[in-house]
Amino acid sequence: MDSMNHRITLAKRPVGEVADDCFAADDVPVPSPEPGEVLVEVAWLSIDPTIRGWMAYDTYLPAIEIGAPIRSGGLGKVIESDNDAYPVGTTVFGMTGWQQYSVFKSGLQVVSDRVPPEAALSVFGTTGLTAYFGLLDIGRPVAGETVLVSGAAGATGSIAGQIAKIKGCRVVGLAGSAEKCAWLTDEAGFDAAINYKIDNVRRAIGQACPDGVDIFFDNVGGDILETAIGHLALRGRVVMCGAISQYNEEVPGPGPRNLGMLISKRGRMEGFIVLDYLRRAGEAIGELSGWVADGRLAYKTDVVDGLDNAPAALNRLFTGANTGKVMVRL
Amino acid sequence: MDSMNHRITLAKRPVGEVADDCFAADDVPVPSPEPGEVLVEVAWLSIDPTIRGWMAYDTYLPAIEIGAPIRSGGLGKVIESDNDAYPVGTTVFGMTGWQQYSVFKSGLQVVSDRVPPEAALSVFGTTGLTAYFGLLDIGRPVAGETVLVSGAAGATGSIAGQIAKIKGCRVVGLAGSAEKCAWLTDEAGFDAAINYKIDNVRRAIGQACPDGVDIFFDNVGGDILETAIGHLALRGRVVMCGAISQYNEEVPGPGPRNLGMLISKRGRMEGFIVLDYLRRAGEAIGELSGWVADGRLAYKTDVVDGLDNAPAALNRLFTGANTGKVMVRL
Repeated sequence: MDSMNHRITLAKRPVGEVADDCFAADDVPVPSPEPGEVLVEVAWLSIDPTIRGWMAYDTYLPAIEIGAPIRSGGLGKVIESDNDAYPVGTTVFGMTGWQQYSVFKSGLQVVSDRVPPEAALSVFGTTGLTAYFGLLDIGRPVAGETVLVSGAAGATGSIAGQIAKIKGCRVVGLAGSAEKCAWLTDEAGFDAAINYKIDNVRRAIGQACPDGVDIFFDNVGGDILETAIGHLALRGRVVMCGAISQYNEEVPGPGPRNLGMLISKRGRMEGFIVLDYLRRAGEAIGELSGWVADGRLAYKTDVVDGLDNAPAALNRLFTGANTGKVMVRL
Repeated sequence: MDSMNHRITLAKRPVGEVADDCFAADDVPVPSPEPGEVLVEVAWLSIDPTIRGWMAYDTYLPAIEIGAPIRSGGLGKVIESDNDAYPVGTTVFGMTGWQQYSVFKSGLQVVSDRVPPEAALSVFGTTGLTAYFGLLDIGRPVAGETVLVSGAAGATGSIAGQIAKIKGCRVVGLAGSAEKCAWLTDEAGFDAAINYKIDNVRRAIGQACPDGVDIFFDNVGGDILETAIGHLALRGRVVMCGAISQYNEEVPGPGPRNLGMLISKRGRMEGFIVLDYLRRAGEAIGELSGWVADGRLAYKTDVVDGLDNAPAALNRLFTGANTGKVMVRL
């Protein structure tokens, strides 16, 4: 164990794109666990778009304080323990933050050592749970329906689309490159993929979804949301998972002009936060692991090495450089 | 019976405000019912914002054809019948259109002669059903919650707000004049009313709804929708009943910039069309008539005399001249 704890902290709140000067690095003494606490050595970090929001302002969680480590999910091992629930050597997932060592009294999930860390942080982590509960609880797919996914080559979108396939839906993905589209149709089993950077998206969705869109699983927001609403089928649902096109905007763009379609189509648009579903994680992970074992659910990871590269890893989400789940290996 | 049928027909589709030249009047021979049909003499017309949409383009129903009578609900008496379900003398409600006489084979609802026509066309008509099913089925109020209603002095809004009161909610109305606001708090039992034309609406909603808005029953859309979303409570719902602020716009205005609130607040926005609920009309009318009889549900009507004044009656909805249900007495 190092005697110092290297951390990436919040230097200032981002305005627009997350610039390097939003971050600082420091080394502080490794914290000592108090009675009932455990010390976790962090091995992996989960890099998620929501971190951008936490850096900037209060959302469903209070904003990160200036000078504090960047809030983030992370995977690590318990190396000191005064808590029988988490003995030394246990692999755990929790809100470790961007640092080498983190102290917890509660709020940790035990991760089986048989699960590779890349899977624990993606398909079996909050990413997989987000896709699972967002699609099934909010979207409520019925076999034969058409599901459109934005950010489809991203961590959450790719899993949501594959679950929709498993549930018997026709699945169309929107992604930002030919390579991503090829991965969606060739590897992830999507029925069709649309490169929104070169295709006439409105027309392409119409061609790929001739009976309209029963569920739009949206990770992107903005123009794509408006276009998808224009194709909503009767009683269509918009699962509002994220709006990554908006997170770097100083002032959010105008909303969809065609919200009135929700009236004539009897549509539903609904947001959710995966934290509300953590108590049901076991149910989701049980199903997800069966599908992975059966070869019906592929997942892709985008691994960045080194804690000091966590800011660059975060920006990969906003430039669309990633296919699959971005994570940092310490 | 007149030998001719006076009609108000669609001369051209409206662009922007519904101008006089969108309408024409003509007199055609009174139709003769075919086998199985009945002839209805129309006595009252239901004037609803949705007629503006039917005149302009396909919505949840096909657009009205040029030269056809304006589509509209209406109340009348069967004066010739070859259908045992509707004997001569029966009072019926159906899509009569803006004309003196209309022929039906089906699609009529029998109205008890004990119900005054003003009540049959408002609180016990599609207006009351819209308020009832929109609030209860889509909004799902829970006692103690806060319900905000736009267009609250309108036909649907005033009934929706009163049902919310009956269900134990705190109810706040948005309306466009001091007189309407006074009617809401003094007669309709709303807890508070906000004159959106003079108040700082954002601040006034915040003051009237200190714990946020659990249900926003929206008849108006546009800026008011964005402002209300900004006050949404955790797991808040937006019942998309109408968007009258948008119906006269040539190009719909931008949607709410703050739709992302639906994610962080786990919010739901859902549209509906009352036609889907007509099979459950009996359930609603049973409850509504109990509340009216108990004096817990007040309704107000805005009666315009003369078929030729139907276009002017329609425009009262868009100028906000009305308090309560607009109808035409022939």
